[in-house]
Amino acid sequence: MNDEVIGMNAEIVAVGTELLLGQIANTNGAYLAQKLAEIGINVYYQTVVGDNPERLETALRVAESRSDIVMTIGGLGPTDDDLTKQIVAAHLNEQLVVDAAAQKKIDDYARTSGTLKTSNNAKQALKINHAVSLTNHNGFAVGDLYLNAHGTDYVLLPGPPSECLMMIDRELMPHLKKQLHGDVVFKSKVLRFVGVGEAQLVTDLQDLIENQTNPTIAPYAKTAEVTLRVTATATDEQAATALVDQTITQIMARDGEYFYGYGDDNSLASVVVNQLIDRKLSITAAESLTAGQFQGTIGSVPGVSAVFPGGFVTYANEAKHRLLDIPNTVIEHFGVVSKETAIWMAKQAREKMKTDIGLGFTGVAGPDELEGQPAGTVWIGIAYRDQAPEAFLYHFTNGRQVIRERSVMSGLNLVRQRLDAD
Amino acid sequence: MNDEVIGMNAEIVAVGTELLLGQIANTNGAYLAQKLAEIGINVYYQTVVGDNPERLETALRVAESRSDIVMTIGGLGPTDDDLTKQIVAAHLNEQLVVDAAAQKKIDDYARTSGTLKTSNNAKQALKINHAVSLTNHNGFAVGDLYLNAHGTDYVLLPGPPSECLMMIDRELMPHLKKQLHGDVVFKSKVLRFVGVGEAQLVTDLQDLIENQTNPTIAPYAKTAEVTLRVTATATDEQAATALVDQTITQIMARDGEYFYGYGDDNSLASVVVNQLIDRKLSITAAESLTAGQFQGTIGSVPGVSAVFPGGFVTYANEAKHRLLDIPNTVIEHFGVVSKETAIWMAKQAREKMKTDIGLGFTGVAGPDELEGQPAGTVWIGIAYRDQAPEAFLYHFTNGRQVIRERSVMSGLNLVRQRLDAD
Repeated sequence: MNDEVIGMNAEIVAVGTELLLGQIANTNGAYLAQKLAEIGINVYYQTVVGDNPERLETALRVAESRSDIVMTIGGLGPTDDDLTKQIVAAHLNEQLVVDAAAQKKIDDYARTSGTLKTSNNAKQALKINHAVSLTNHNGFAVGDLYLNAHGTDYVLLPGPPSECLMMIDRELMPHLKKQLHGDVVFKSKVLRFVGVGEAQLVTDLQDLIENQTNPTIAPYAKTAEVTLRVTATATDEQAATALVDQTITQIMARDGEYFYGYGDDNSLASVVVNQLIDRKLSITAAESLTAGQFQGTIGSVPGVSAVFPGGFVTYANEAKHRLLDIPNTVIEHFGVVSKETAIWMAKQAREKMKTDIGLGFTGVAGPDELEGQPAGTVWIGIAYRDQAPEAFLYHFTNGRQVIRERSVMSGLNLVRQRLDAD
Repeated sequence: MNDEVIGMNAEIVAVGTELLLGQIANTNGAYLAQKLAEIGINVYYQTVVGDNPERLETALRVAESRSDIVMTIGGLGPTDDDLTKQIVAAHLNEQLVVDAAAQKKIDDYARTSGTLKTSNNAKQALKINHAVSLTNHNGFAVGDLYLNAHGTDYVLLPGPPSECLMMIDRELMPHLKKQLHGDVVFKSKVLRFVGVGEAQLVTDLQDLIENQTNPTIAPYAKTAEVTLRVTATATDEQAATALVDQTITQIMARDGEYFYGYGDDNSLASVVVNQLIDRKLSITAAESLTAGQFQGTIGSVPGVSAVFPGGFVTYANEAKHRLLDIPNTVIEHFGVVSKETAIWMAKQAREKMKTDIGLGFTGVAGPDELEGQPAGTVWIGIAYRDQAPEAFLYHFTNGRQVIRERSVMSGLNLVRQRLDAD
């Protein structure tokens, strides 16, 4: 290895007693491993070790013996426990030196806030001599990228996820891509799908997934959605993008109806709400089994107030009658978990709130059955603009919380489909 | 070490490429580490390695060199990738032998279902010779507890969480407790606190936390709550429980006002809703910044329908006026983010839904400020039975989702305090 090309096998060493004891999950490590895989760096081992100097030292020695590059996460903070940088520097026979930009940031903050103790925080402005500083956009602790002409490369990242993930995205990845392969460019896009299971998607795309090596297609299933990551390599950005886009065209021809958006940080709620904002269409809901969770979910999107005036949580039948003026005879005759009740809820919510779109959620969250229907039976009604209101039946499984979450996602998907067709 | 006493330092080695690449989280490892901590077994390292025989072998060798007991998770299944047991057995110079009970279970299932291929599954009925079998209550793969007179002890657990967690609880922990210390019993209780920060709680209890070794007190902070785990050892269950309870009494004398319940799987929503059910007190809410999330949260508790008829999401001012009959002059005069508006929301929601308790949430979720007030400014109103309605001001930080989540927890805490005082 020379000092211009970074190694291809990385080991992630996460530092922190709370991680070790399982009190918090190692989400940083998982995220970093995913990002490294995208650019072709292999992670063969991940290690978790507590805030203990000797055992961290042992973990580093083991990692060095089997990996080209060691990436530590955690232990860069202001307290006495935070020793990662000190230990790695000693290990590399390097001094710690002040990173002027980071020191200025701490000084500026101390001056304006008046509460920060500069002395405690000075430590966070130190970097390993001869390392490239990785700027911390959400905190004070500087990260390090140390390219070692004589041995293992080192990357040091902070522990708090808000700091770590942003440093990976904005600082580490661009540096690594530049180091890596000289003239090879990686391009990767994430496609998000809803209303289709992973098994079906993989079957639909089996030949593409199995026979292609560039781009590669990696599926990943979440509670109520599936993502595909399409990654290509080429000699320039344009060629890599063209490869990715060709494969996306093939995927879309088969499963485009389930596609709702691009990107790792995207969500169906965000896509739907932003479409509603763009098209100036307002929305409301009347919720029974979801009890406010649909509205709470669209409420998580900044700017939603432009299209969402509010709505109803009608858990009891009496509330459906009183808040929404649904005739008692409807519920008595058809049952509360019925197509008719779902349609009435959607229609009345829309009318009462004077919105373009109204949704109605009624069903059995469980654990007990209701009206003889098993947990997971859900009707979702939608009243979309001047179209005749409709309702759809779902059968969900896997417990109360998953049933409610899938109901929310399915409601959002109904809105997405109407918007696409409109 | 002899073959009757198990080692006190464990290393967890999780096996699986999906874990390594961050596609699934290592929840098994976290759970196992917590359980081991409760009985006084230290976990100093956790390692994750892919489904690769050479690298698993390397990980085992490293783990052996620094830990008394190595616990593997994963790689016990029926496919060719599943090699953990084979590799550990070779490593220990032991044969694999058929576990008769596990083989019978596979044969019985194959006979009745007609679909299971016995040949593929036979592998899962193998155990390491001289190991104690750990029964799999949710699958076919047998686990192993291998007490090694000449070196490192081994525990082998299956990868699927439903199989792994049950094997830990029902098989591994009873065995370890029996092996461990002979006649020493561990007792551990988790106390949950809300409305107090970790820093304050630790300061209040500093002398207890620092000077006590039996019981120990371990604090842990989550988004809007703090837990303390109190763990004691003694020669019998009763003595251990007495030690734990004495310490709990001391903790309660100082911070009892913030305590809301016991247990790892407990939640404030569950405690509050179950108290409401027990006392037959009904509840509703009118939500602005939380947009249904408070109601969605209490809706997550089974049985809530007995005390929660429904409520209002009043995001726009117009909705506050129209659904709740709050005079426009109140909002115009005092502002929508104000004590008065919060009180009106709580009061009117309670009146309209004819419940015992009404809450009102109004505030600035962000990212933008509102009425000149910064993101995080939140008023929560409560109308409790016949008491005069009140409202409380909060200043939360850390972004839109955390602000909304803390608002929900603070609303629940207001109800808890009223119930305690009533």
